[in-house]
Amino acid sequence: MTKPLNVGTIGYGFMGKAHSNAYATVNHFFDLQYRPVLKAVCARNAEKAQAFAATWGYESVETDWRKLIERKDIDLIDICTPNNTHAEIAIAAAKAGKMILCEKPLSMTGPEGLHMVEAVEKAKVPNMVWYNYRRVPAVTLAKQLIDEGRLGRIFHYRAKFLQDWTINPELPQGGAALWRLDAAAAGSGVTGDLLAHCIDTALWLNGNLDSISATTETFVKERKHNLTGKVEKVGIDDAAIFMGRFHNGSLASFESTRYARGHKALYTFEINGEHASIFWDLHDLHRLQYFDHRDQGIVRGWRSIHVSDSDHPYMGNWWVPGLQIGYEHSFVHQVADFLKGLETGKPAMPDFRDAYRTQLVLDAILESAKSEKWVKVVHG
Amino acid sequence: MTKPLNVGTIGYGFMGKAHSNAYATVNHFFDLQYRPVLKAVCARNAEKAQAFAATWGYESVETDWRKLIERKDIDLIDICTPNNTHAEIAIAAAKAGKMILCEKPLSMTGPEGLHMVEAVEKAKVPNMVWYNYRRVPAVTLAKQLIDEGRLGRIFHYRAKFLQDWTINPELPQGGAALWRLDAAAAGSGVTGDLLAHCIDTALWLNGNLDSISATTETFVKERKHNLTGKVEKVGIDDAAIFMGRFHNGSLASFESTRYARGHKALYTFEINGEHASIFWDLHDLHRLQYFDHRDQGIVRGWRSIHVSDSDHPYMGNWWVPGLQIGYEHSFVHQVADFLKGLETGKPAMPDFRDAYRTQLVLDAILESAKSEKWVKVVHG
Amino acid sequence: MTKPLNVGTIGYGFMGKAHSNAYATVNHFFDLQYRPVLKAVCARNAEKAQAFAATWGYESVETDWRKLIERKDIDLIDICTPNNTHAEIAIAAAKAGKMILCEKPLSMTGPEGLHMVEAVEKAKVPNMVWYNYRRVPAVTLAKQLIDEGRLGRIFHYRAKFLQDWTINPELPQGGAALWRLDAAAAGSGVTGDLLAHCIDTALWLNGNLDSISATTETFVKERKHNLTGKVEKVGIDDAAIFMGRFHNGSLASFESTRYARGHKALYTFEINGEHASIFWDLHDLHRLQYFDHRDQGIVRGWRSIHVSDSDHPYMGNWWVPGLQIGYEHSFVHQVADFLKGLETGKPAMPDFRDAYRTQLVLDAILESAKSEKWVKVVHG
Amino acid sequence: MTKPLNVGTIGYGFMGKAHSNAYATVNHFFDLQYRPVLKAVCARNAEKAQAFAATWGYESVETDWRKLIERKDIDLIDICTPNNTHAEIAIAAAKAGKMILCEKPLSMTGPEGLHMVEAVEKAKVPNMVWYNYRRVPAVTLAKQLIDEGRLGRIFHYRAKFLQDWTINPELPQGGAALWRLDAAAAGSGVTGDLLAHCIDTALWLNGNLDSISATTETFVKERKHNLTGKVEKVGIDDAAIFMGRFHNGSLASFESTRYARGHKALYTFEINGEHASIFWDLHDLHRLQYFDHRDQGIVRGWRSIHVSDSDHPYMGNWWVPGLQIGYEHSFVHQVADFLKGLETGKPAMPDFRDAYRTQLVLDAILESAKSEKWVKVVHG
Repeated sequence: MTKPLNVGTIGYGFMGKAHSNAYATVNHFFDLQYRPVLKAVCARNAEKAQAFAATWGYESVETDWRKLIERKDIDLIDICTPNNTHAEIAIAAAKAGKMILCEKPLSMTGPEGLHMVEAVEKAKVPNMVWYNYRRVPAVTLAKQLIDEGRLGRIFHYRAKFLQDWTINPELPQGGAALWRLDAAAAGSGVTGDLLAHCIDTALWLNGNLDSISATTETFVKERKHNLTGKVEKVGIDDAAIFMGRFHNGSLASFESTRYARGHKALYTFEINGEHASIFWDLHDLHRLQYFDHRDQGIVRGWRSIHVSDSDHPYMGNWWVPGLQIGYEHSFVHQVADFLKGLETGKPAMPDFRDAYRTQLVLDAILESAKSEKWVKVVHG
Repeated sequence: MTKPLNVGTIGYGFMGKAHSNAYATVNHFFDLQYRPVLKAVCARNAEKAQAFAATWGYESVETDWRKLIERKDIDLIDICTPNNTHAEIAIAAAKAGKMILCEKPLSMTGPEGLHMVEAVEKAKVPNMVWYNYRRVPAVTLAKQLIDEGRLGRIFHYRAKFLQDWTINPELPQGGAALWRLDAAAAGSGVTGDLLAHCIDTALWLNGNLDSISATTETFVKERKHNLTGKVEKVGIDDAAIFMGRFHNGSLASFESTRYARGHKALYTFEINGEHASIFWDLHDLHRLQYFDHRDQGIVRGWRSIHVSDSDHPYMGNWWVPGLQIGYEHSFVHQVADFLKGLETGKPAMPDFRDAYRTQLVLDAILESAKSEKWVKVVHG
Repeated sequence: MTKPLNVGTIGYGFMGKAHSNAYATVNHFFDLQYRPVLKAVCARNAEKAQAFAATWGYESVETDWRKLIERKDIDLIDICTPNNTHAEIAIAAAKAGKMILCEKPLSMTGPEGLHMVEAVEKAKVPNMVWYNYRRVPAVTLAKQLIDEGRLGRIFHYRAKFLQDWTINPELPQGGAALWRLDAAAAGSGVTGDLLAHCIDTALWLNGNLDSISATTETFVKERKHNLTGKVEKVGIDDAAIFMGRFHNGSLASFESTRYARGHKALYTFEINGEHASIFWDLHDLHRLQYFDHRDQGIVRGWRSIHVSDSDHPYMGNWWVPGLQIGYEHSFVHQVADFLKGLETGKPAMPDFRDAYRTQLVLDAILESAKSEKWVKVVHG
Repeated sequence: MTKPLNVGTIGYGFMGKAHSNAYATVNHFFDLQYRPVLKAVCARNAEKAQAFAATWGYESVETDWRKLIERKDIDLIDICTPNNTHAEIAIAAAKAGKMILCEKPLSMTGPEGLHMVEAVEKAKVPNMVWYNYRRVPAVTLAKQLIDEGRLGRIFHYRAKFLQDWTINPELPQGGAALWRLDAAAAGSGVTGDLLAHCIDTALWLNGNLDSISATTETFVKERKHNLTGKVEKVGIDDAAIFMGRFHNGSLASFESTRYARGHKALYTFEINGEHASIFWDLHDLHRLQYFDHRDQGIVRGWRSIHVSDSDHPYMGNWWVPGLQIGYEHSFVHQVADFLKGLETGKPAMPDFRDAYRTQLVLDAILESAKSEKWVKVVHG
């Protein structure tokens, strides 16, 4: 029989939905000892929290996250709130001895993240950050191919994350759905939102970044603020580009923006190695492009791998070859791995410390963009 | 509050899993009056049924489908068993006044299907057949574009469904996972399995087929039979091709096979109209290709539509633009539509009568392949 | 030093241009003993012939093809005129001892084609038919892969050739640029024009067709005739579909049309073998798609081969890897092979006899479409 | 009648071949007053020059370019030699009053380029630099769409040029075919070779670059030198990345390398505007990807434009819709435009001055890579 693991989720927005789905679904497809129980959802707006609880089958509702953390019947706190609240909640939850799953990015800054790391490490509570794209099967397969040494020496790593949803200058900033445009709540713009994903994957696949040079841009300088009702200066970066050098000697080329017309969520990365190259694209997330120079010359070409076979990562748990999965499955996989980690004692990654390393790169990017100089990345 | 709808599922195989997931998920994403309750699962093997019930949260287990049908606490019977059992179960369930959802194809033959249609219509029970691909958002969008008259007069409809999983002659036929290779259980090979999907979509999108000429082939003539342990003649068709004419004057070109190396589940269709054309492909199911001749000449091209915007069919219920869904979502949508149909009194399609029309085309194909003559399709 | 080979070209239309370019270009890129000399172009309209000669550097002009054939200074007659003139010219040219290159399709019918075959074989003159797509490097590579046995037993061969240029019912038939719509000049519609290409490639790659069942359609039944000025019945087929069986046991599925909105010249073929599959597409003619099941499972996928490496067929003669060639290069390659054949005594294919085999399939298609029955293909 | 324009080509390598083909072909497809005559080819190796002349039909051979320049019967000097020879030849040719077509990059450095500009402007001789990719029809179409204002305000311009031909460390540097790896002959590595193309297109499509920050890398530090026979330090850059700001406020992201396994000549650019975006790729050069946000939402998608219609740039001169052209056609178009410019008095671009602007960006890149600082681009 499975053991219940009582989850208390803070926040009912997009990520509250994605995580709740993962908890509700994971045991249907993965054979695990633990079974998440949707014990409580917490949000300041009681009515909306109630509605969310009804939809997802949460057993109870809280409107103060401190109360949730105090509850004895909660094993795990899931933080799905804006970035500027992560640290306070996480540190309190750690002190209360709760396991913690925190939305990305971990924190507003590196130093803040370090406090969080220290809190969970001191409390010895299981912890993880929702960099979900590691668990898209095609991305996990990329990791596997790299770990097998198939690529040889790496020369290039390039990634971009392109969106187009903030081009309209009439779009306001701040408040419920638009806190990501408010520097006070989000910390930064695309750097913390989109580049954070690119960097998490990159550090995982290609190791540390040693130094970077970055630039950022805010195309729309002023927007009405939902919280004040006034037109205010926009504090976030609309676009960010950086180049750099990885510790393994390869060159980095990264870009993210919310002003790339035609791209909704085009996260792509490409790695060029001595022997082989890999390319992936979130818009067709179930495919991996793979080029192996060791193939015979006349039939050498980029292979479009439909990552849906039972020997592909995670896919044996779903349907049959040729039938693709989607976005939310990456969250299901992350919960499955987290629960498996509890069973085996080998924690699923990225934990807070791992995610803190990404935070240090984000800090370097923002510093370089401001100083217009190359910046050495601190290794966490 | 939602009203419970008690489901009794017969069969725990691939389709039992796909349907159970749909029942478990639908209310998380769709706002509906009814909420399916996983009341009972039924299978001859009690142990396996028990394990399946535990995984999915079915409240009880039955080993005799007749007992399940007799239960007063069951509202809806879901038939996920091999084709040769559909009719007997469905007719009995109809007599017992249960709603019925039946896996495709409806029946072994047209006449058998007609008995099933008559049974549900006499009993006036809601009924539906799981031709799930109608509810892939890109396919539903295709239907919408056609209904809006965007294509103009239709000249061509071509579809294929290509797989490659039975090429190995050592693969046996019959029994649990391989009943689809056993003519006694499946009725036919790719015709009832794969072409059935192609035809359901085609009749829905393009209207009736009037006449067809078909050919079938069995590449591996003998296989070991799992039930007898002996090498036996293979009775199913490994591949089937037909051409024909639709009632609207357009030409039909269809093909399906399990011997197309490199294709796992490549269901594609293309429709060429006077003004516009449409193409869809199950291997990248979240995209629709659309060509509109009315676009200005110099910028005319096939548009690759990433069907993930909130104004695309069903997609407003899931994530945000750019984030794709997968295979199982089509089943969730079908349950959502079925439940909505109960609310509104406008039944979701395809019902048994609608699916019976597909059955009549399947009969015509098998007859034509045998007689080597053109055959008129009976319109049901 | 190279030896001159004096060419007399009959016709200055699209194909006159494509062939003239091939003669003018071939020695720049291929190391050959023979060098075509543009000696004369022949057309009824002296003025247009003169202009064409000036553009291409033809040394002289004729307005009567019989005179051209009589000229002692002409070694080779190139027939670029409508289909209904091929036989008469070719038979006369053969009698005059000229080498003959004839546009495809060879003839109006199989029996007519046989006369032509007999004429060139009796006269022992080098002869070839312009089925140029064999010499697209990606297609030649497909042939090479098949000849090496990489595909194993073949199960399926499917081809289509889709265009959309005759959808407008106001387009007239007949006369200069539109003789292809006039049954008297063309013999048939898409069957002789487009399917002929598909069949030539198929017989070359996959061997003889044994039997076929076909259907044709004329969507626009009447068009104004350019030669009479009157609205007349359209005698050609606008679309043709056939299915059949190859001698090697594989199934055939073929389609062509001029009513597929969005496709200008979409000639595609796909071959599915036991071990590997191949796909090619004229719209991106410099690529070959190749799937090899013997690749390791987790990295198995369709390989998109950019056929531009120096070890790819013909490509060592052009540029460097990554730089693609286009349509007209297939004609250059065909002339190169023809000239090489003169050097080596191993004639380039397809010769008249080879092209006659395609003609017999075309006859079978038209017969089957008329009789609505399966027809055995005569092997020439 | 056409007027002869006598061409003297210096160099018989890859570019000598590409240019000679353009001269030999242009009048076959374009209606022009001038007709290039292949008067002389010049190279130090008389035997090779003779062979080249025989292949292409050059009337004579020179082994000293100074003699070629002195010849009265030469109208136009075409410089196809390594970068370090351009200036001396071009300045001498200008003094001799010859028209000059010079291979790209114009010069070794900006200042050297300025001398060349001054020479041709003083001599008032027609001059042009072979940045051929402007004349790929899809690229020219991109220019047309931008000039029509379809994209609106531009936010992003990103380009890359990826190759993989120098990964092998055993590849030597210097001498005939490998002068591009020798800093003394080439000036720089990928910066002058590949980025130069990207920058030329970018300045043409998107206007001036104001400032840039760049980094370069040499992955293989030492290679055997073909001229000395010794292992020597490699002086060129193997890879170069830069980011920057265009004068119109858009962000620049550029990368080039010869170490991207799987890419032979992957020159791509993408432009994201307020209303529309454009993407192009040299590996499928006959296509342009175009996204227009003004398309109706449900059918919005990237359009894959097969640039082969008669109303597409240059394509009315070639074949029929659907039939693609290749790499060398861009050179034919450039010659056609140059000759048309002689007719009309409106010189074809890029002339020396225009190409000099690209040179100034290249200088800024190399300076920034060395200083690790942002550098303002001098506008020429």
